[in-house]
Amino acid sequence: MTNLKEVARKAGVSPSTVSRVINNHPYVNEEKRNRVLQVIEEINYIPNINAIHLKKGKTNLIGVVIPFSNHPYFSQLIQGISEEAIKLNKKIVLFQTSYDNDQEIDALEMLKLKQLDALIICSRNISLNIIEQYVEYGPISIFEDITHSKLRTTYIDHYKAFYTALNHLYEHGHRNISCAINRKNSTSSLLRIAAYKDFCKEKSLTFNKKMIYENYVLLEDGYILAKDLNKSPTPPSAIIVSGDNTAAGLLLSINNDAKEHLSIIGFENHKISEMLNLTTIEIPLINIGKSLFNQLYDNNITHHFFETKLIKRNSVKNINC
Amino acid sequence: MTNLKEVARKAGVSPSTVSRVINNHPYVNEEKRNRVLQVIEEINYIPNINAIHLKKGKTNLIGVVIPFSNHPYFSQLIQGISEEAIKLNKKIVLFQTSYDNDQEIDALEMLKLKQLDALIICSRNISLNIIEQYVEYGPISIFEDITHSKLRTTYIDHYKAFYTALNHLYEHGHRNISCAINRKNSTSSLLRIAAYKDFCKEKSLTFNKKMIYENYVLLEDGYILAKDLNKSPTPPSAIIVSGDNTAAGLLLSINNDAKEHLSIIGFENHKISEMLNLTTIEIPLINIGKSLFNQLYDNNITHHFFETKLIKRNSVKNINC
Repeated sequence: MTNLKEVARKAGVSPSTVSRVINNHPYVNEEKRNRVLQVIEEINYIPNINAIHLKKGKTNLIGVVIPFSNHPYFSQLIQGISEEAIKLNKKIVLFQTSYDNDQEIDALEMLKLKQLDALIICSRNISLNIIEQYVEYGPISIFEDITHSKLRTTYIDHYKAFYTALNHLYEHGHRNISCAINRKNSTSSLLRIAAYKDFCKEKSLTFNKKMIYENYVLLEDGYILAKDLNKSPTPPSAIIVSGDNTAAGLLLSINNDAKEHLSIIGFENHKISEMLNLTTIEIPLINIGKSLFNQLYDNNITHHFFETKLIKRNSVKNINC
Repeated sequence: MTNLKEVARKAGVSPSTVSRVINNHPYVNEEKRNRVLQVIEEINYIPNINAIHLKKGKTNLIGVVIPFSNHPYFSQLIQGISEEAIKLNKKIVLFQTSYDNDQEIDALEMLKLKQLDALIICSRNISLNIIEQYVEYGPISIFEDITHSKLRTTYIDHYKAFYTALNHLYEHGHRNISCAINRKNSTSSLLRIAAYKDFCKEKSLTFNKKMIYENYVLLEDGYILAKDLNKSPTPPSAIIVSGDNTAAGLLLSINNDAKEHLSIIGFENHKISEMLNLTTIEIPLINIGKSLFNQLYDNNITHHFFETKLIKRNSVKNINC
């Protein structure tokens, strides 16, 4: 069946432009308007009023739950989500939660009250049990390393990604490896710590909780991390920082001599890591954002897996074992 | 009159929590619930059903027009807007436009159709004339260096800020000064170029259009800028880059020797400029975001001015005149 989206595609304009031409709204570029009208004539498109009515009760609003906006990790997810939302003429309602449970529940309640058509959860604090109870009101997608029977998930393998980073350092001779994570009880942190424990066991390295530095997330946290590492009685020869932002801050806070004695691996592969020649584990956040949006429209509950990738640059040095 | 917000304030919780307690929603923390009930009893608060009815027709949705999400300039504005929106239990609908006129008009049309209560425009491509026509449908605030009779504006003095940067370089002996801007026809760029022209005239310096580099906005654009500066037959001794992101990219792309011969001033005062010891003009973006939101609720059309500030660090050197 011909629909509005097809008209848009054939005319090379957005669905919202077609909608405006049909509804005779002002401010449509004359050339675009003519192209749309030509396509409508060519394919004998009749706007389907029934389809429009069927759609009533839809708000075309999609909720997006994120803790902060001003962090490249989350702003890249929003960027990807928004790029796809525009294509379907959906609007994004932003729930910037600061990991406050009340704010997260607000989003779920709005889904229940049909104020939202669907919900995307980029990161959460409340338990999955609570979220599950809301899937009957609309599709929910979540960026989390799980395959869940009720929630649509887009995920990466945090365990494997962290293990890959550890192994890369090990192959360069490092035996005294630290790691810096954000919230210690988040799903991703738990998987990273598990990988770290298993790795230590497998390679017969001592696992020491004090080697795990917690609550580092911002660029400026890298400066604090540099200080904290300095205080260690047995400073590590290498560190994995689960965010390029903090890894970049660390790299910018230490002098050239210290750089020679501290190998660093970041996470995410933001532009800053390319500029600083920082070895990192790439997480394709914009594409993950796109997937989180698009899977809301899959007919079934789907789980989309994205590969992470070690990007070798200049911040990992060989040391003698 | 006692209202829900007062109850919230007295109980030290968010208005949405009070609302949930009153409506007997699940998932309110027991201690918070008790505190709210205690305050309600203390001040004998009766939820005003009329007020609730009066409010019908309100969506509690506020539109926010931004070109991109994944740039610190805009993500800081969103952060500030969202922090204030949460306090009034309003939700943010994000219009990520990529400066596409259609997307900007979409936002205005949703205001007209009462799908939004109000609109915040962080940056725009369409003309002010078009925007003006929509103020009858709801309050519109805009981050722009104008005082306009119909639009609520939050603004900084782009002309003065740029002039201050130029003067700082002049005082350090620089006479061959370049500048790098983003979109050349944006209101802010036009004011910056005007300041540059006037400054050259006043100080009897040659104004040369080729000294203005256009379309630099990302971190990685700093790398391109470094190359472009290298190609110049008369390379400048100093450059003002109207974004810390690009200024940081430039600084990271040149060697120590080049740093000695090129003074750099950035704009915005993001954390990256602090880490890199970059002199910059501070723009209080989070507070500007807060103001853009709050002035939607001013009784009259208001204009909020924010000061910018020269932050002296280490990227401006003296040269002999």
